[in-house]
Formats: sequence, structure tokens, C-alpha cells
Amino acid sequence: MKIMLIGASGTLGSAVHRTLADRGHDVLTVGRGAGALRADVSDPAGVAALYDAAGPLDAVACAAGDVPFKPLSALTADDFHAGLRGKVLSQVELVRQGVSRIAERGSFTLVTGVLAREPIVAGSVASLANGAIEAFVRAAAIEIAPQRVNAVSPTIVTESVPDYGDFFRGMPSVDLADVARAYVRSIEGAQTGQVFIP
Amino acid sequence: MKIMLIGASGTLGSAVHRTLADRGHDVLTVGRGAGALRADVSDPAGVAALYDAAGPLDAVACAAGDVPFKPLSALTADDFHAGLRGKVLSQVELVRQGVSRIAERGSFTLVTGVLAREPIVAGSVASLANGAIEAFVRAAAIEIAPQRVNAVSPTIVTESVPDYGDFFRGMPSVDLADVARAYVRSIEGAQTGQVFIP
Repeated sequence: MKIMLIGASGTLGSAVHRTLADRGHDVLTVGRGAGALRADVSDPAGVAALYDAAGPLDAVACAAGDVPFKPLSALTADDFHAGLRGKVLSQVELVRQGVSRIAERGSFTLVTGVLAREPIVAGSVASLANGAIEAFVRAAAIEIAPQRVNAVSPTIVTESVPDYGDFFRGMPSVDLADVARAYVRSIEGAQTGQVFIP
Repeated sequence: MKIMLIGASGTLGSAVHRTLADRGHDVLTVGRGAGALRADVSDPAGVAALYDAAGPLDAVACAAGDVPFKPLSALTADDFHAGLRGKVLSQVELVRQGVSRIAERGSFTLVTGVLAREPIVAGSVASLANGAIEAFVRAAAIEIAPQRVNAVSPTIVTESVPDYGDFFRGMPSVDLADVARAYVRSIEGAQTGQVFIP
């Protein structure tokens, strides 16, 4: 399959890229500062330009989503706006604009995370964004069939525990390879409207 | 208790207002076009002005949230922005700005709905908004204690079935009185971070 992968150079995106390439897929990498195509998907016009540049696609996978992490008492209204632009509207636009552009039985795989269901201090924007996308996935799925849309919702990845483990104290981690496998399940499988928890 | 109720003149808000008043609470009604105070809470500055005008409060309850209902193929990026402003950022601002203003053990009760978990055609913005707020409630709760925050997440209310039942075919409805009771549970009870499904 020809798969467009947004956020392909990040920790998660690199693992997804490797896994998909190992399985014989043609992966079109996209990033803000790295990748075969450069795009800022937080801008709807950037998403349109990206689809124009990408050409025919069988699947779109997203491994990118920027949200601010701050205590609620330090968050501003602009921080919430930024989180919605960076992780919610960006992924919504990939689906909304992509439906008319990808293959008839193509799929979208979005990224959310454990904070949709389990909170941590300073994570309220991430929780908000993840909860939004998980509900959107369930809703969009019933309208875009036979195209499909799912989310992959990992907890902290094991490889990031040295850097971010203090924010997720006592919570289990998941290996990047297992998260990448959830992308495979979404892309190569036939389910839709699902939130895969690797 | 002195309770500020946003959206007090709507179908749901009127029922919540009656129920809270019957229980002896002092309800300060707020609406865009009706109520003791007039405010557009989709504007952060409007929320600030509202708290300034309201004075000391024991609880804040929201029964207002505007989102566009359209098939995904007809939704624009602006529609998603409008839904986020109308139901997500509005309620986030009530909490974010309210924490420093309401009573030490005060509470926030927000409104979401069944579309967070069960999709309907043309409901993807509502799903997105409801999912966002339900995850936000879980996250904000652990940071604002001993203040509390919950959501009330009704399915279609029985009294609205004649008007909107076609969108919720085969789905159970809930009486307004039961939804209002969930607001009482949130406001007078001691739980936090909960999504009450009446």
C-alpha cells in the first residue's frame, strides 16, 4: 500500500515507519522539518497542499500531535487553542479533506493516548485532545464507510520512560514495537471506529 | 448554595433551574439572550466579565453548548472551530477561570452527551466536543481538588423526541427530570472527575 505517514521522524513515527516499510509498504514520510514532504498539518491549507503533493494514497497514518503540558492553573486560553490546533483540528482535517482523496477502501489511523482515560497532572490539554479524537473516530467511521478510521491510543512508550517517566509514575509502559503493531492492525485490518490500545 | 447556571433558559437549563430552585438553591441564571446575567461564554473575555458580575459562587453549572450538526462531507474546518468554541473552550474557560473565583469546595458541572460514546450521522462535531469535555473533566478533577468538576452526559431527552427523535432512532431517551437530578448529584454530592449518565 501507499501510506502517507505524518510525523514520520518522531520517536513514534520512526518506529511506525520502520514497521510499515518492513512489511513492504510504500511509506510517504511527512513532517514539519523532515520527511519526503514538508507540511504543517495544524493549518487546514497545509493539509490541502499536502494531499495535492501526495497523489494517490491507500492509507493515511498520523504519529504527530503537539499539545502543551502545564498545570491547569498555568494554562491560558491560548494554550487550549494551541492544543486543539496541534492534535485535534490537524487530525480532523486529515480525515475531512482526505475522504475525497484516498482510495475507496482506504483508511485513516490517528494518534491519541492514555490521557484520554487516565489523567496526569499537567496533562489536561492532552486529555482534552485525546478524548476529542477518540470520540471523533467513532463518529466519522459510520459516515465514511467503506473507508475506515481508527485511533491508536498508547500509554507512555517504554523508550520514553527515561525522559517522561516521572509524569506517568506507576503506570505501565508499552514498547514502541507494540504501538507500531497497532498501526498495522488498523491499516491492514478491516475494523473501523476503533480505539486500539497497544 | 449560590449556583450560577449557564444556558438557564434552554430546554435542559429550564429543567435544571426548576429542580435546583425547588431544592432551595439560589440560582443565578445566565444566557446569551435571557437570564439575570447576559454573557457569551464562547468568548474567554465574556467568561471573565461574567465571573466579575456574578460575585461569590458555590457552584457553576452549564447547560449550554452549541455545535453544528451536518454530515461529515458537508462540514468545513470553520464548523469544527465553531463547535470547539461553542461547547469545548466555553466550558473549559468556565473551569479554568472559575477555579480562583468560586468557593474553596465549590464545584463545576459541565454538559456533554451520548454522542461521546455512541455516534449518529451528522453528529461528528458533537461527538468530538463531548469526548473532549469528558476527558477534560477527568483530568481537571485531579488538579483542582478540593474543588470538584463533573459532566452530565444525557442521551436525547424524552421531551425533545418529537423534534429530534429521527436523529436518535432506536436509542433510549431520558426524561429531563432525570437529567436535572444528575446535576443535583454532581452539585450536592462529593464526587469529582465523573461523567454522570442519567
